[in-house]
Amino acid sequence: MEAFTYKYPVQVYFGEQAAARSLPKELERIGQNVLLAYGGGSIKKNGVYDELRSILQNAGKTVTEFSGIMPNPTYAKVQQGAALAREHGIDFILAVGGGSVIDCCKIISAQAKLDADIWDFEYAQHGSPTDFIPMGAVVTAFGTGAEMNNGAVITNEEKKQKSPLWGAFYDFAILDPVYTMTMPMLQVMSGAFDSLSHCMEEYMGTPRTGNLTDELNEATQRSIIRNIRATLQTPQDKNVRSELMWAAAVAENGMLKIGKTTDFQCHMLEHQLGAYTDCNHGQGLAVLHPALYRRYLPEAAPQFARLATEVWGVDPNGKTEKELAEAFLNALSAFIREAGLPTALSEMGIPEDTDYAAIARSTIRTGGCIKKFDDQYLIDVLKECI
Amino acid sequence: MEAFTYKYPVQVYFGEQAAARSLPKELERIGQNVLLAYGGGSIKKNGVYDELRSILQNAGKTVTEFSGIMPNPTYAKVQQGAALAREHGIDFILAVGGGSVIDCCKIISAQAKLDADIWDFEYAQHGSPTDFIPMGAVVTAFGTGAEMNNGAVITNEEKKQKSPLWGAFYDFAILDPVYTMTMPMLQVMSGAFDSLSHCMEEYMGTPRTGNLTDELNEATQRSIIRNIRATLQTPQDKNVRSELMWAAAVAENGMLKIGKTTDFQCHMLEHQLGAYTDCNHGQGLAVLHPALYRRYLPEAAPQFARLATEVWGVDPNGKTEKELAEAFLNALSAFIREAGLPTALSEMGIPEDTDYAAIARSTIRTGGCIKKFDDQYLIDVLKECI
Repeated sequence: MEAFTYKYPVQVYFGEQAAARSLPKELERIGQNVLLAYGGGSIKKNGVYDELRSILQNAGKTVTEFSGIMPNPTYAKVQQGAALAREHGIDFILAVGGGSVIDCCKIISAQAKLDADIWDFEYAQHGSPTDFIPMGAVVTAFGTGAEMNNGAVITNEEKKQKSPLWGAFYDFAILDPVYTMTMPMLQVMSGAFDSLSHCMEEYMGTPRTGNLTDELNEATQRSIIRNIRATLQTPQDKNVRSELMWAAAVAENGMLKIGKTTDFQCHMLEHQLGAYTDCNHGQGLAVLHPALYRRYLPEAAPQFARLATEVWGVDPNGKTEKELAEAFLNALSAFIREAGLPTALSEMGIPEDTDYAAIARSTIRTGGCIKKFDDQYLIDVLKECI
Repeated sequence: MEAFTYKYPVQVYFGEQAAARSLPKELERIGQNVLLAYGGGSIKKNGVYDELRSILQNAGKTVTEFSGIMPNPTYAKVQQGAALAREHGIDFILAVGGGSVIDCCKIISAQAKLDADIWDFEYAQHGSPTDFIPMGAVVTAFGTGAEMNNGAVITNEEKKQKSPLWGAFYDFAILDPVYTMTMPMLQVMSGAFDSLSHCMEEYMGTPRTGNLTDELNEATQRSIIRNIRATLQTPQDKNVRSELMWAAAVAENGMLKIGKTTDFQCHMLEHQLGAYTDCNHGQGLAVLHPALYRRYLPEAAPQFARLATEVWGVDPNGKTEKELAEAFLNALSAFIREAGLPTALSEMGIPEDTDYAAIARSTIRTGGCIKKFDDQYLIDVLKECI
């Protein structure tokens, strides 16, 4: 896939050398003090850190570093970053990493400008913040599509809640597939499955009648599945990686949500699993999706049947809707194994004595879900996944 | 399809009552003097004019009217509008209509702020204008997707050139499918075919290898074809109209151009046909596409074959690539007849003695086209369509 620029409302710079081509110009119009935010330091191994530091230096910026943003970024880390941003009079945040870094900075950009505690602010129904430190994202691990929207999933360790908060859109996002070539295969698969999950969560929302949004969604799912398989064959294929990276963005840029109330019940359940176990997001989804979706039956049979034929290539001849729905569930489970993703919580090192009742109780129930799940229902799903 | 808001970078307000819901708020942040631009006055028959006038009045705006914007809007009309905007110190342009009104206002918004003659300015390679009067669009005739991009097709009668110019993006676009229910069926089909043509022109660009962009494109084409057929069955179905209206926007919002150099050779040929005959755009495309595409063979056989199976539902079993490509061309021609669109220039009232050589000579050759056409090649295409 060739390089392109595209606005949505985030200005996307996609392709090899995208940072070298676009970042110097973007830095011209921002303030002096830049917060360079990243995670555990993988960017120091793959050369991205050095490249960006020198671009920032050539632009004459004063750089403050904020590192160590963890997977499942915590509320405490957000507060730490916001304090640092205030202390150094930060004019611009450059977030370098995957969804965790990119989400964390969305909320830092809001908290730094907000006197109130942003968690209370948003959950006390005061609504979303409106004042932000402007930001740019450099994506080095793909899957979440976090660079394309203004939602952020933050773990409040004290409250044992991993919940969405609303921050700013990035001014720009730099997507260079080459930056992701050093991701370990399991992380690539976890991220790509997260993208597929986003599509399914959007697809399963209401209305569930066929429409353009769903057709675009089916196309995106087919593309992700095809390119996950291609990645397993040729892990270092840059075009395959480009397709997966862009599909991850498309899955979360709003296009597949148009005209729909989305589901995202599996995400909400996984978030609480993460809040209690700090597990990997994509892998948690891989374990939970089949078990949860089986409980969507029989209500979701028409959508599952459509996924079977339109996305998973199941031949409908001589099959009932119920049989097609089952075929989808089986194809999804088989694919998760094919991708080398876990199929049980135990494979993820999650102890059997985890407080599943507390996870179920604290799971947000979504309006777009085809079923209203009571606690026991969700406890059963979780226990089935042990 | 349900109402939604969506930014791209145009803020789209889609759905029934979208104007009543969104326009008052949008008017709050704009200046005092509004140019209300529209076409031949159909909006006075279907009530849209009265609705918008009262919203503008309630907002306390000073309104200057600019009416009579014609299909194939002329350069002279642009200059007239720009002079009017200067004269009245217009702060905001509200364009109400279809692609012609929406395109015309994009260039008025630029010319009103530009001392140079915008035609010379852009074609003398001074690049695109950067200063604009902000605008909003209310779409009452769909198909072009003009509200979603900053390109505008203007006819320079003196120079006998119908060419793209580059103006501003709209701040917002109001898409209420109900506003389009009074469109005559032939205009609905012409607009919808223009949307399908945009998809095909994007699809036929380079690279031509399968990718996510092309899969999204195929999904959009299937949706347009299905909903054109549904419109023929139930012309007043609001959901069908909504799907067509949104598909027209998707086809021109940039999503299907990502990572590709698009073709648009058929559009360029039709533009010059329009420059010389003032013919209807969608109908001109309907006549020209089959004849031009037949000349894309054999180079385009792989793409045509893919369109046959992925978009037109042709069973590939036992067919060669060449046979599938032919099947696509036949399906496209049959569909144009099915939609009640013309299949010959004579049906459009275009005289036989039209100066086809001049049309061919003045047709822009596009970089994304699979073939480089010399004048005679294009003359043959046009004559074949007589």
